[in-house]
Amino acid sequence: MIEFEKYFSFDLDDEANKKIMNAFGSLVYEKERGVSGYYNLPYDSVNLLSEVENFIVNEDGIYQSAVNIVVIGIGGSSLGTKALDSMLKHKYKNIKNMLFLENPDPVTLSNNLSAIKKENSIFVVVSKSGGTIETMSIFKTVLSYFDIDLENSDKKRVIIISDEGSPLCRFADNYSLKAYTIPGNVGGRFSVLSAVGIVPLALAGYNVKDILDGARVFLESFFNSQEEHVAIKAFFQVQNYKKYPINVLFSYGDALEDFTKWFIQLWAESLGKMDTKGNNVGLTPVAHVGSVDQHSFLQLIMQGPRDKTVTFIKVSNFENDLSIPDMSLIDLEKTDYVNAHSFNELINAECDATKESMVAMNIPVDMIILDKIDEKNIGELIMYFELLTSYAGALFGINTYDQPGVEFGKKILVKKFDKKEEKDIK
Amino acid sequence: MIEFEKYFSFDLDDEANKKIMNAFGSLVYEKERGVSGYYNLPYDSVNLLSEVENFIVNEDGIYQSAVNIVVIGIGGSSLGTKALDSMLKHKYKNIKNMLFLENPDPVTLSNNLSAIKKENSIFVVVSKSGGTIETMSIFKTVLSYFDIDLENSDKKRVIIISDEGSPLCRFADNYSLKAYTIPGNVGGRFSVLSAVGIVPLALAGYNVKDILDGARVFLESFFNSQEEHVAIKAFFQVQNYKKYPINVLFSYGDALEDFTKWFIQLWAESLGKMDTKGNNVGLTPVAHVGSVDQHSFLQLIMQGPRDKTVTFIKVSNFENDLSIPDMSLIDLEKTDYVNAHSFNELINAECDATKESMVAMNIPVDMIILDKIDEKNIGELIMYFELLTSYAGALFGINTYDQPGVEFGKKILVKKFDKKEEKDIK
Repeated sequence: MIEFEKYFSFDLDDEANKKIMNAFGSLVYEKERGVSGYYNLPYDSVNLLSEVENFIVNEDGIYQSAVNIVVIGIGGSSLGTKALDSMLKHKYKNIKNMLFLENPDPVTLSNNLSAIKKENSIFVVVSKSGGTIETMSIFKTVLSYFDIDLENSDKKRVIIISDEGSPLCRFADNYSLKAYTIPGNVGGRFSVLSAVGIVPLALAGYNVKDILDGARVFLESFFNSQEEHVAIKAFFQVQNYKKYPINVLFSYGDALEDFTKWFIQLWAESLGKMDTKGNNVGLTPVAHVGSVDQHSFLQLIMQGPRDKTVTFIKVSNFENDLSIPDMSLIDLEKTDYVNAHSFNELINAECDATKESMVAMNIPVDMIILDKIDEKNIGELIMYFELLTSYAGALFGINTYDQPGVEFGKKILVKKFDKKEEKDIK
Repeated sequence: MIEFEKYFSFDLDDEANKKIMNAFGSLVYEKERGVSGYYNLPYDSVNLLSEVENFIVNEDGIYQSAVNIVVIGIGGSSLGTKALDSMLKHKYKNIKNMLFLENPDPVTLSNNLSAIKKENSIFVVVSKSGGTIETMSIFKTVLSYFDIDLENSDKKRVIIISDEGSPLCRFADNYSLKAYTIPGNVGGRFSVLSAVGIVPLALAGYNVKDILDGARVFLESFFNSQEEHVAIKAFFQVQNYKKYPINVLFSYGDALEDFTKWFIQLWAESLGKMDTKGNNVGLTPVAHVGSVDQHSFLQLIMQGPRDKTVTFIKVSNFENDLSIPDMSLIDLEKTDYVNAHSFNELINAECDATKESMVAMNIPVDMIILDKIDEKNIGELIMYFELLTSYAGALFGINTYDQPGVEFGKKILVKKFDKKEEKDIK
């Protein structure tokens, strides 16, 4: 169960209501016309999941001996999967180890490669376009480093996830590799509930069904107009994007750190756009983890420029009873007020105290409270943020689903290597 | 060696020059009058280091058998040490493992505790005030969990780092524990080159001398007016804090991620202040790691609101020759342009391409280029960011070294537990 609390208010006048209703209409349109396919994933991915489960049963030789699921992907091809793995792994005893080969950093890559044994690994290569330069470079390196035989012995060890008809899918066909496709109308940052996340998470052994279920329930509730808070928050943030250009996501719990990285891509890349009038619009997401980051970022929120909204994520019950001993140390008696309390209580009291100190300063705050971290709640959380993003995009009047601003750098990159080749020839 | 490149420009008129000179004067004053003691650390910590090295020699029984240096601390008591460990550890073969018990997250704490064996660990408890609630709670938990005998057998296993005369130092005296003090005029976020960082890093086996040396050389160069770029950048950022309220630190290399967390505390907590006129001033730091975060944050920088400056950190030579194989895969030939190039080249070409795409859009950019990651460069980098922060603080006309905005939440926290006690009694 998730509760949503709001600690900011504004006049919801007729004009605001009209904008909100129009934006809701846009989302209905997007869903029904397939402008973005993420709205259908909680349904469509159930079949996909059965397919993966079949694969697991039929390929059980390789599958049973695998201890690592190695995901080769970057950005939308890895962030969501990593977020789910980080949130859930402590709840499972027999989950396969997930490894992510993302960044083309030579040191990290070398370390990761030397920590992997081919014989107990399954490699999942994820690239929507099928041409992501980091992913393809790392894939080639993996093929070479482990001497992977795609013709015969290692054929079942490599799984491809990409758009239908992409170069990578055609490559998979050439070698009859197992491939799962991403719907063409599902963008990378909205793709965690497609094959992109479903396949590696199911291979690792997660209960993916419940994640999809949590997402579906929230989606249906939203389109049945039962989740008005989504509209209110999206409207407030978009309406005030010049006054509050920065949205801080302050999560209390280490397991949520990777989730906030997923959120950053979703929010930044979806909303940072040129609108139809040529204005540069968008909102800057910033992620922090409590209580540790109270010691680095809270001072700025409290006394710096009033340019931030803050969303807290709190987990009521970490299902862990580690407690502070009832121990009084000489000269340190002042810290005894938390004695015999659990760390669960301490971290949540810190969250509440920080929230209250901000509310008292009229900083716009809202709070998302998970009763615990489980598959259903996480599915719901994912769908909540995706719908919030779509809503904000509709209110901005932008295309939420493209990312034209990154192409320029890619072109420069290609040219750099062309020049290098020329130099090498000379 | 570090190079500093600037890709923004502005008119440096007489008034600007006057402000810059005044701010420089403030820093000289701060240094000479001991307003902040961090300016002296590159000198003073050399003696401290000898002391630690003596300790290592004399306590070699416990020291030799230790494989873990467990740092119990949070915020300014851990971020800097963690940053240095993350940047340097891949360069050493025989370094002790550093573990950080920071966040009062019950799941992380439980996992970390169960991964530690008392017999091969040294525990370093770091708290400037000596009363940090998270740190003291975790310290008590460690004492109880490992049944640590402070009277006898484990006396040498616990090291205290705190302000002279603090409750924690008095506690250490009671048990005759080894304690190192932090100068009273060195704030947490400026303390990495004090006992806070020096002691655990030296215990782990790092070449701390060279870190101090790198910091000292830059400090001297700065006060000899050889590093004018620091003033120029600080002035530009402060002058434009309303136009560009967000400063992105975009580091290309995974080893730098923890360093950017250290930077976030330094920049956010030092500059987010109420100035003498009652204005809320400050600049919001945001940290990203390339090339991976190009896939999440670049679109927003390129097409979203023009409210950001971007500082790149690039490492010219990762001293690692992992390369992309010269392998052409069927249907994936379009990615062959990087074939036979090293990942070192790829990640740096991505950095340059991204920088050039931003410069072309008139986004204010600067770049810090380390020829490699080593102790001297990192010492220099730390001192650079500390001086930049002091400079910006002087230009804002604020107290760079306090953090009054976090006290309110601490008081609320204490009350929450008082109420709990009342409830428990009823």
